[in-house]
Amino acid sequence: MVVPLADALPLVPTSPRWLEVALADLDAVHADHLHCERKAAQSALSLIRSYPEHADLVREMARLAHDETRHVIQVSRLMARRAQPAAYDFGDDYAAALREHIRKKEPERLLDRLLVFAVIEGRSAERLGLLAGSLEDAEAAKLYASLADAEVRHRDIFLSLARDAAPDAWRARAAELATIEAAIMDRRTPVARIH
Amino acid sequence: MVVPLADALPLVPTSPRWLEVALADLDAVHADHLHCERKAAQSALSLIRSYPEHADLVREMARLAHDETRHVIQVSRLMARRAQPAAYDFGDDYAAALREHIRKKEPERLLDRLLVFAVIEGRSAERLGLLAGSLEDAEAAKLYASLADAEVRHRDIFLSLARDAAPDAWRARAAELATIEAAIMDRRTPVARIH
Repeated sequence: MVVPLADALPLVPTSPRWLEVALADLDAVHADHLHCERKAAQSALSLIRSYPEHADLVREMARLAHDETRHVIQVSRLMARRAQPAAYDFGDDYAAALREHIRKKEPERLLDRLLVFAVIEGRSAERLGLLAGSLEDAEAAKLYASLADAEVRHRDIFLSLARDAAPDAWRARAAELATIEAAIMDRRTPVARIH
Repeated sequence: MVVPLADALPLVPTSPRWLEVALADLDAVHADHLHCERKAAQSALSLIRSYPEHADLVREMARLAHDETRHVIQVSRLMARRAQPAAYDFGDDYAAALREHIRKKEPERLLDRLLVFAVIEGRSAERLGLLAGSLEDAEAAKLYASLADAEVRHRDIFLSLARDAAPDAWRARAAELATIEAAIMDRRTPVARIH
């Protein structure tokens, strides 16, 4: 039932400067990436908590969290192989800035949560793909390419759920959030993290 | 590296009355169980957030969360097959009562968090096993038996991590928490939930 819906969520391209900054401190990028995958799993589980009566959503989010926890395992293995330091989660002001646009009242709240997660997955997919194309470590590059593909699938799962939740409103709201995200991206200084 | 450590955590047997209450409202039990598995995954992920520098813990908790998210999928399938209603999470006053005994200061805090999760996994394993032995639906009984086995393994993972974190202190603290848990259990009225 998940069909490509990317045209509903056109994101501006990441500034080339981000890739330079990220490649200059891969330890920091991988350590942050571990937390991103962890938080993606937690976000999916939080939707199950909020909407247990939506059987489709519960099933899709359980599967998505299962995927994301595998990614946590994979990134932790990469970090172990590199014998690199771990890092605490510095928080994610990018995601926080997006979440400010989630409306408080249902049913708008569900739609906005789904679309904000779609935006984050879409942006993550783009950046993991940029890293995959630039990492000298072939094994790490392959892992990042596979994770980028997974995040594209996840974005489309969120878009499908958004479409089902609000068939008439989802496209216009997705376009609004893409515009909001472009403004957030424009304000940000590139850092050696995924977002 | 995970070895059976159950002797360190002897839990009192569940009152037979609980099983009667649970079997009388299986819809409620399964719906609560879905949330239990979800929260177990979230708890494991929360430990990764708190202790990213403990590489062993990160690896084990990522695997455990991956297991628990599969259980969420499995329980959601069981509920779909039964065409049963979902329910919101009523909160878990059993787990909340245990968590009150987690000390605030490190390194005691890590030890207590690991042991409280071990207690919850141990109790869950016992109760899922009781249900497995009593459910008339053979497919559901088989699922519950496999989930009970998994929770035993998870209990032992938490006990192993507790042992590694505090080799001299973990057994005595596990015994204390088992006593505390027995008192909590003694005060509880049986309800049609896992705890």
